Amino acid sequence: MAGMGPPPAVADVRRAVRLALDDLAPGSLVLVACSGGADSLALAAATGFVASRAGLDAGLLTVDHGLQEGSDERAAEVVRLAPALGLVPAEALRVRVGGGGGPEAAARDARYAALSEAAGRLGAAAVLLGHTRDDQAETVLLRLARGSGTRSLAGMPARAGLYRRPLLGLGRRTTVAACEGLGLSPWDDPHNLDPRYTRVRVRERLLPALEEELGPGVAEALARTADLCRDDADALDGWADAAYAEAVVRDPAHDPDRDSDRDSAGDSALSDIGGGAGAVTLAVQGLAELPRAVRLRVLRRAAIAAGAPPGALSAAHVLQADRLVTGWRGQRRVEVPGGVGVVRRYGTLVFARQPASPVS
Amino acid sequence: MAGMGPPPAVADVRRAVRLALDDLAPGSLVLVACSGGADSLALAAATGFVASRAGLDAGLLTVDHGLQEGSDERAAEVVRLAPALGLVPAEALRVRVGGGGGPEAAARDARYAALSEAAGRLGAAAVLLGHTRDDQAETVLLRLARGSGTRSLAGMPARAGLYRRPLLGLGRRTTVAACEGLGLSPWDDPHNLDPRYTRVRVRERLLPALEEELGPGVAEALARTADLCRDDADALDGWADAAYAEAVVRDPAHDPDRDSDRDSAGDSALSDIGGGAGAVTLAVQGLAELPRAVRLRVLRRAAIAAGAPPGALSAAHVLQADRLVTGWRGQRRVEVPGGVGVVRRYGTLVFARQPASPVS
Repeated sequence: MAGMGPPPAVADVRRAVRLALDDLAPGSLVLVACSGGADSLALAAATGFVASRAGLDAGLLTVDHGLQEGSDERAAEVVRLAPALGLVPAEALRVRVGGGGGPEAAARDARYAALSEAAGRLGAAAVLLGHTRDDQAETVLLRLARGSGTRSLAGMPARAGLYRRPLLGLGRRTTVAACEGLGLSPWDDPHNLDPRYTRVRVRERLLPALEEELGPGVAEALARTADLCRDDADALDGWADAAYAEAVVRDPAHDPDRDSDRDSAGDSALSDIGGGAGAVTLAVQGLAELPRAVRLRVLRRAAIAAGAPPGALSAAHVLQADRLVTGWRGQRRVEVPGGVGVVRRYGTLVFARQPASPVS
Repeated sequence: MAGMGPPPAVADVRRAVRLALDDLAPGSLVLVACSGGADSLALAAATGFVASRAGLDAGLLTVDHGLQEGSDERAAEVVRLAPALGLVPAEALRVRVGGGGGPEAAARDARYAALSEAAGRLGAAAVLLGHTRDDQAETVLLRLARGSGTRSLAGMPARAGLYRRPLLGLGRRTTVAACEGLGLSPWDDPHNLDPRYTRVRVRERLLPALEEELGPGVAEALARTADLCRDDADALDGWADAAYAEAVVRDPAHDPDRDSDRDSAGDSALSDIGGGAGAVTLAVQGLAELPRAVRLRVLRRAAIAAGAPPGALSAAHVLQADRLVTGWRGQRRVEVPGGVGVVRRYGTLVFARQPASPVS
């Protein structure tokens, strides 16, 4: 067998890309987001190889964040390499990184905005990202430290909208070996060693410490945890969607003039009232019978539908609203972000921007 | 306020114990499992205090594992201290630690067996354990490294059968301060610093490294993760129980002579067939419509009901069985542990110890 096929790492990356693209119709355009680093360079090479055999068009995008000396020249180099990998068109996207949410978040937001714009302009069916199992493990560990639950621990999905991550099942070692096997020289981003970045500290210090103390295979275990948590979060979100739809009722106090067509209850509960987001009214009885994991998700949805900003709405806010259901002893209005208040009124919970008016 | 009440840490521990016991009828007996270490000593002192005011009887159990020089003398010391804490009866339980599953697991098994025996003999309504938020964080981190999903990440429950853990919301710092505040001298178990124990390495090296690289509050975040995961796992297990009951059908090939009373389908599917555990037959159609997280749980239940040992049944086995539902292309019998096989036959999945006989 030796010498008969590509090196094993090259074959592994190609197989992963083939599986990730097998639902696309011939003639579809696939774009690879490539920084020039080992992960996305191995992905780019495999995509050029796989696409030509699958009757797909494949191109390349590289983002110049303009944050490092010579970043424009590096982007140009990646673009110049693309045709040899079978990737046409190839574009460098220059972005302006804003200041919101820390440097890593700002760079990520700018990058995805540019990729999405280019994908739309070029009519791409998919944009491939080079995240590996190691990136997934880092993500899970970072999120674990925030204590924010199953959806958060689910890490990065293999597919989300246009974006696909074919390499989530492979380790970084494989992408490095694949580049070597193809004679490609990946770019080593100096940011990847800068300990001012939390992710770099997770990669360079924490994951090695975990492997040292708990034994090898921690990255695989974290990635497996992410997969299981994603399934769990999907199932619970589906349940919560159904439970929310069932719990929503038209609120007569807020919406008296539509009281005549009560049989459309639910449809108008999210409608605009007084210029803000709509008030949302939930029936308490159905809520009380749900398992807590589902009930808290339903309450979260209601608060957001009533205008609470998702990013500002904490688990503590939702738990306070939950006390109106499970620990009712005549409490007053519970305040959640975005100026939204929650009151219990007879058999319902009302989420609204304005203080709820007393029932006449 | 200063000097008016007990030190804050003492008050915190008492409040936690009071909340944990508030459902017990007056006259109930509560036992504290106390090693003499800071966590369980603070718990013992608080329990004596709270119980006398709540009209409860309270006693103490201490386990002598016989693994360290002088362990019998230490156990006797803890017992001698008990009456001063308001804890009568007080007993030292000498256990013999077996060899199964590593030294930590063997000691734990022996300990819980002895505690349960004593609780039954003394007629206790609850046994209190001194695990803190820090123990919970260590547990979550240890389990995370195994990659075994939401239930596993749920960590230790605040209540399970007779056992209650009142201190899961408090840090170890609080129990140490509470002992200080009461003038109690906790025993420092030398095992708690022995780096041959995985849990010790997690406590002494990994959690500090996580705090160092990710910022303070990691233990709290891990404990919060455990709480969220427990809610999620409870909800999904409840769903899976219902889905399992709905999917189970009487298997005509295995159970032809009971075909007449089909309306009791499900009740007899777990019955004994041929001396082993019963065969279990599930309808494929309902399964295919379930979210994956629920379907995999249902398949797991079916394999266990058919005789697969839970500890040996891996996620990989269950995924293979799942391919018979979601990736059906005429596969043969899938083998799972315990000599159980899974076959798809027409619209059903049959889990059975014997190879399934062909339909005649």
